[in-house]
Amino acid sequence: MQAVIDYLKQNQARFVGELCDYIRFPSVSAQAQHRADLQACAEWVVNHCRQIGLEARVYPTPGHPIVVARTSSSVSNAPRRPRFVVYGHYDVQPPEPFDLWTSPPFEPRIEGRSLFGRGACDNKGQNLAHLKAVEAYLKTGTDLPCDLTFVIEGEEEVGSGSLAAFLREHQADLACEAVVISDTGMPSPKHPALTYALRGIAAFEILLHGPARDLHSGIFGGTVDNPAMALCQLLAKLRDKNGRVAVPGFYDDVQPLSAYERKEMARLPFKETEYRKLLGVPKLFGERGYTPIEQRSARPTFEINGLTSGYQGEGSKTIIPAWARAKITARLVPNQDPARIARLVQRHLKSLCPPTVKLEVQVTRGADPYLVSPTGPQAQAALRALKAAFGFDPVLLREGGSIPIVNDFKKCLRADSLMLGLALPDDNAHSPNEKFNLDCFAKGQLMSAFLWQELAAAKK
Amino acid sequence: MQAVIDYLKQNQARFVGELCDYIRFPSVSAQAQHRADLQACAEWVVNHCRQIGLEARVYPTPGHPIVVARTSSSVSNAPRRPRFVVYGHYDVQPPEPFDLWTSPPFEPRIEGRSLFGRGACDNKGQNLAHLKAVEAYLKTGTDLPCDLTFVIEGEEEVGSGSLAAFLREHQADLACEAVVISDTGMPSPKHPALTYALRGIAAFEILLHGPARDLHSGIFGGTVDNPAMALCQLLAKLRDKNGRVAVPGFYDDVQPLSAYERKEMARLPFKETEYRKLLGVPKLFGERGYTPIEQRSARPTFEINGLTSGYQGEGSKTIIPAWARAKITARLVPNQDPARIARLVQRHLKSLCPPTVKLEVQVTRGADPYLVSPTGPQAQAALRALKAAFGFDPVLLREGGSIPIVNDFKKCLRADSLMLGLALPDDNAHSPNEKFNLDCFAKGQLMSAFLWQELAAAKK
Repeated sequence: MQAVIDYLKQNQARFVGELCDYIRFPSVSAQAQHRADLQACAEWVVNHCRQIGLEARVYPTPGHPIVVARTSSSVSNAPRRPRFVVYGHYDVQPPEPFDLWTSPPFEPRIEGRSLFGRGACDNKGQNLAHLKAVEAYLKTGTDLPCDLTFVIEGEEEVGSGSLAAFLREHQADLACEAVVISDTGMPSPKHPALTYALRGIAAFEILLHGPARDLHSGIFGGTVDNPAMALCQLLAKLRDKNGRVAVPGFYDDVQPLSAYERKEMARLPFKETEYRKLLGVPKLFGERGYTPIEQRSARPTFEINGLTSGYQGEGSKTIIPAWARAKITARLVPNQDPARIARLVQRHLKSLCPPTVKLEVQVTRGADPYLVSPTGPQAQAALRALKAAFGFDPVLLREGGSIPIVNDFKKCLRADSLMLGLALPDDNAHSPNEKFNLDCFAKGQLMSAFLWQELAAAKK
Repeated sequence: MQAVIDYLKQNQARFVGELCDYIRFPSVSAQAQHRADLQACAEWVVNHCRQIGLEARVYPTPGHPIVVARTSSSVSNAPRRPRFVVYGHYDVQPPEPFDLWTSPPFEPRIEGRSLFGRGACDNKGQNLAHLKAVEAYLKTGTDLPCDLTFVIEGEEEVGSGSLAAFLREHQADLACEAVVISDTGMPSPKHPALTYALRGIAAFEILLHGPARDLHSGIFGGTVDNPAMALCQLLAKLRDKNGRVAVPGFYDDVQPLSAYERKEMARLPFKETEYRKLLGVPKLFGERGYTPIEQRSARPTFEINGLTSGYQGEGSKTIIPAWARAKITARLVPNQDPARIARLVQRHLKSLCPPTVKLEVQVTRGADPYLVSPTGPQAQAALRALKAAFGFDPVLLREGGSIPIVNDFKKCLRADSLMLGLALPDDNAHSPNEKFNLDCFAKGQLMSAFLWQELAAAKK
C-alpha cells in the first residue's frame, strides 16, 4: 500500500491539472446547446480511464451517454473476487447566473486550497478522486483486492432518466457487493462522513370541493361551508402541538434510532443560534424528544408545500371559494412504505372530512426511504477507510432528502450504497462559485485506496 | 287618490314606451367609451322630469353627472311639509357577453309581461316607476302630501364614488325624513318586500412569515414550523363545529332577532333542496339554531375568501413555504362595529399565534351594518303601501350583502333608507337577458303613489 500512497502524493499536481481539464467541459445536461459538450466530456472520461489502465466504453442512451470503465481482471477468467460499482456523474448544473461568478465557471481557477469551477465538487472532483486511487494501484502494480466497475453518467442533474433502464439491461455485468458513491457532503474537513440513510417521500394533493362556483359571501354566506375553512380544519388536525404527525398508524413502521446512532449524531457540529439565523425563523420547531439533527434526517415529516383557494390577487374579493387545495409531501424514514402511508393518509382524511364538502385525494408520487446499517461490516469498513485517510474519527450522517439512484441500485442490483461524500458545506454545489477543496480531493483519493482494502476484507 | 290610480292605469302603454326610450341609452358607467351616453341619458332624465312637472337639473361630478329633481313646492315658501329623497341610478352594468343575449341589450323587447334590456330592472324601470307616480299626482292636480327630491346618479355600478361628497355639499337642500330606494328585490310577485337591514363587513389579510425563503423540505424539514400549517391551525380555531365564529367578544354587539322578525322570516318562500342544488353543495352548513334565511342575512359570518402559500403550479415542489396568507371577510350585523371586530380578531390571532412564525394582520376595509326598525312608523307605512299596491301581505327582508350608499345617506343626511325593491329573482340583474316585469313596474308606481300618503302621515 505504501507504493499507492506515495504515488498519490507524488502526482497531486498532475491530478489537479487533469481535474481542470475535466472541468473545462461545459457539460450542462439541462441545456440542449451543450449536447455535444456532454458527448465530448464522456469521451474524455473514457480516454482518461483507458490511459490509467481501465477497460472503458461509452454507452449511448436516449439522453446523454453513460461511461462504464472496469478493472481488466473483472472481465477475465480470474477467480471470483469481490466486486464493487463506483458511481459518479460527469454532467453539471447550469452555471447561471454568470454575473455572480468571480471567474468564468468553465475556466478553473485555484485560490489557496480551493479549485473553483462548475462541477468541481459536484461531481467531477469526487469521481476523479476514485479514478486516481485505482490509477495508483494499476500504475504501481499493487494488487487491487477487488474488481471495480465505474458507472459515470451524464444525466444526474436532470433526474438520471436513463440510469434505471441501463442498470436493468446490464444487471449481470454490474452485479456487485456494494455501490460506492461520493456525491454527498461532509460537515467539515475534520468530519469525514458516511451517509448511511436517506428519507423517502410520499406526495399528495388534497382537494376539497364546496359550492359549484365561487359564491357571493354576502348573499349566501352563513348557509354553506367554506371549503378553505374546511381544508384548514382538516389539515390542522394532521400535526399535533408536539410536532407529531397525527395520522393513525403513521409511525408504525418507523425504525427507532439506536443508541449508537443517537450518540454518533450528537457528535455532529451544530449550533442552534446559527442554524436559526441561517433559516431566518423566529424559533425552531420540531418533533418533541429529538434533536434538530435527528428531526431533519431521521424522523418523518408532513409538510404543506402549497395552499391554493379562492382569490389570490390584490385587495379583497367577497366570495366563498368553490374549492381549496393543498399540496403535501411527507418525508419518510426506514421502514415506512410510501404506498402504505398514502393509504393511511387517505383513510384518515376520509374519516375527518365533513359531509358539507367533497374530498378528493390524489397520490402524486412516492420514493422509498433508504438505510444501510451503520454497524454492518461494509459501513464499518468504510468508516475505517475514512479515518485512515482523513486522520479524524468519521461521523455518521443521515440525509433528510432523497437520492433516487440509490433506490435504483437497490432494486436493480440488490446492492447497498455507501455514500462517502467529499463536498464541504461551503463548496457552493448548484450555486455560483462552486469549488472543491484540494485537500478533500487528495484525501478522497487516499480514502478510496484504503476503501478497497477494507471492503474486500469485509463481509457483505 | 282615485284620480292618481286612474291616471296610472290609463297611461301604462305610454310609460312602457318611455321606459324603452330610457333603456336605449347604453349608459354603461364602467366603460369610458360610453361617457357621452351617460351624459345624454342624464339629460333625458332631466328633460323627462321637467315634462312631468318637476324642477330638475344635472350636476356635474368628477365622474358621471347626478340628476336632481324636486317637486316645485319644496323650493317655495309654502309651510314646511314632510320631505323625502327618492334615490335611483341611470347607469347600468356592462352588457357583455353579448352572445348570451337573446336580443340586443339596448334594443328593448317585450315578451309577455317581461321587458328585456340592460338596465330594465337595475335600475331604470324602478326609478321611472317613482317618477310616474309623482307625474300622476302632478298631472291630475292631486295634492302631494310631501315634498320629494329625486337623486338619480350615474355611478352606482362603479361604486358611487361621487355620491358621498355630493350629499355632504347639498346636505341642507337634501334634508329629509327618509330616503326611499327601489334597487333591491322581492321574492315573487306575490311577495312584495321591504328590505330593512343589511350586513356590514370587516376585511382582513392574515400573513404568517416563516423562514426567510422557501426551504428544501428534505434538508430542513422537521426542524422549522411550516407557515401554511401554522395558518391552517390558526384559522381552524376561528370557527367552531356549530358554525359559530370563535373570536371572543365577536357576538357581543349582535342585536338578537326579535320574535316578530323570526316570524316574518319564516313566511318567506324557501325550499332547502332547491337552494342546495342551486349552490351545488353536498349539504348546507350554518350557525346552529338559525334557519338558512336567518343565517345568510341576520347572522354574522367569518369567511376565508382566499388562501395562498408556497407552490401553486403543476406537480409537486418539496418546499417549506416562506409565508402563508389568508384573505378574510367577516359579514357583520347590527350593531357590530367593523373597527371593534377588527381589533377583536387581531387580538385573538395574536394570542393564538405560535412563537415559531411571525404574524401580520392587515385590516383592509370595513362597512357598517344597517338596520331600520321594521316595527317603526316609517317601515310600517311602507308595508301598508306595498300591501295596497300589490294586494298581498308584504314580507320583511334582510339583505346579506352591503349597500354602501345607505350608510352614506345615514351619515350625510342622518336619514334612514326604506328599501322597496321591485326586482324579481329571475330578472337577471347584472347578467345577460336582464328584464323587468311590467306588472312590477305598474304596481311599483301604485306603491309609490300610496307611499307618499302613508309616509306623510307617519312619524319619523
